[in-house]
Amino acid sequence: MSDKKIEIEGSGKHCHVTRKTLETLFGEGFELEEKKMLSQPGQFATPHKITVVGPRRSFEVTILGPCRKADQVELSLTDATFLGISAPIRESGDLAGSPGCKLIGPKGEVEIDEGVIIAKRHIHITPEDAAKFGVKDKQIVTVKIGGDRALIFDEVVVRVSKDFATYMHVDYDELNAAALTQSNRTGEIV
Amino acid sequence: MSDKKIEIEGSGKHCHVTRKTLETLFGEGFELEEKKMLSQPGQFATPHKITVVGPRRSFEVTILGPCRKADQVELSLTDATFLGISAPIRESGDLAGSPGCKLIGPKGEVEIDEGVIIAKRHIHITPEDAAKFGVKDKQIVTVKIGGDRALIFDEVVVRVSKDFATYMHVDYDELNAAALTQSNRTGEIV
Repeated sequence: MSDKKIEIEGSGKHCHVTRKTLETLFGEGFELEEKKMLSQPGQFATPHKITVVGPRRSFEVTILGPCRKADQVELSLTDATFLGISAPIRESGDLAGSPGCKLIGPKGEVEIDEGVIIAKRHIHITPEDAAKFGVKDKQIVTVKIGGDRALIFDEVVVRVSKDFATYMHVDYDELNAAALTQSNRTGEIV
Repeated sequence: MSDKKIEIEGSGKHCHVTRKTLETLFGEGFELEEKKMLSQPGQFATPHKITVVGPRRSFEVTILGPCRKADQVELSLTDATFLGISAPIRESGDLAGSPGCKLIGPKGEVEIDEGVIIAKRHIHITPEDAAKFGVKDKQIVTVKIGGDRALIFDEVVVRVSKDFATYMHVDYDELNAAALTQSNRTGEIV
């Protein structure tokens, strides 16, 4: 492998909520608890779950913290099909025209008009690593995975920020399609 | 696209059973009903379901007919993880050393010693199409998929037989990872 190796993490279904949505679902003044820090600085998993209701079925998802400026439910295509939601493949934050859903918490519920997406494969990368790898913000790259289910992911978007740690993120469909296991969690930008 | 285009089908979790296993699970003299013919000549979906029991959880799978010489449970990696079975990625029929499981039917149950696999991506192809595409039996090829989640599947095994119809088969993890939808179900051997 070259020096363009990158560690890959799988994202399970989860959601981000606004302060307002959080208080509607969990009550006024509710604060998100940190259960586990994630690889991206400042981001954390919480012990709080809410129910996402689609036209066909529903399930619980974990809230990731901290609160954001928009509600966003991130699913795999398998998850979206299960719920019966036709969610587009989008970058985080690019929510215009995406479908909504109902969110139910212990103290209330919210109908969001948009925000359900399937995350586009992406690389979070520091400016230092981006320079080293020769990639730029918003660039689309391809990433090669080895092993039993070797494949090359095309359409991987690069996002450069000093607030990031360098990791590639895929969902569980992609993780399993590539058989990315604990002992095979590295890709190479090609 | 070149003329090496191939139609892709997704295989959900399913099992194949021997005559003996079928009779243990469903009773002596039981015959498989044809619910729907599949793309491969002579193969059919049945309305019969059995429960596959793993160390962690269980679920129902559909039996595909006709009966075969060995019991075989084909899962996606997502399915196998759900059941708690560490199944290898194998070609159909290559079962030596694969894990077993318990199968439960309406009339009885069977503990199989081996047979639980995750199917290796493969192409069924007629001798005529193989000649046209320039591929041989057992050859490993790569297949390019376009669209929103473009990727290149490596490690795709080619199987040539006059008894086949020409189709590529992937599981639902792979189907969803590539966003292979009704309007985007074609790959290209590259």
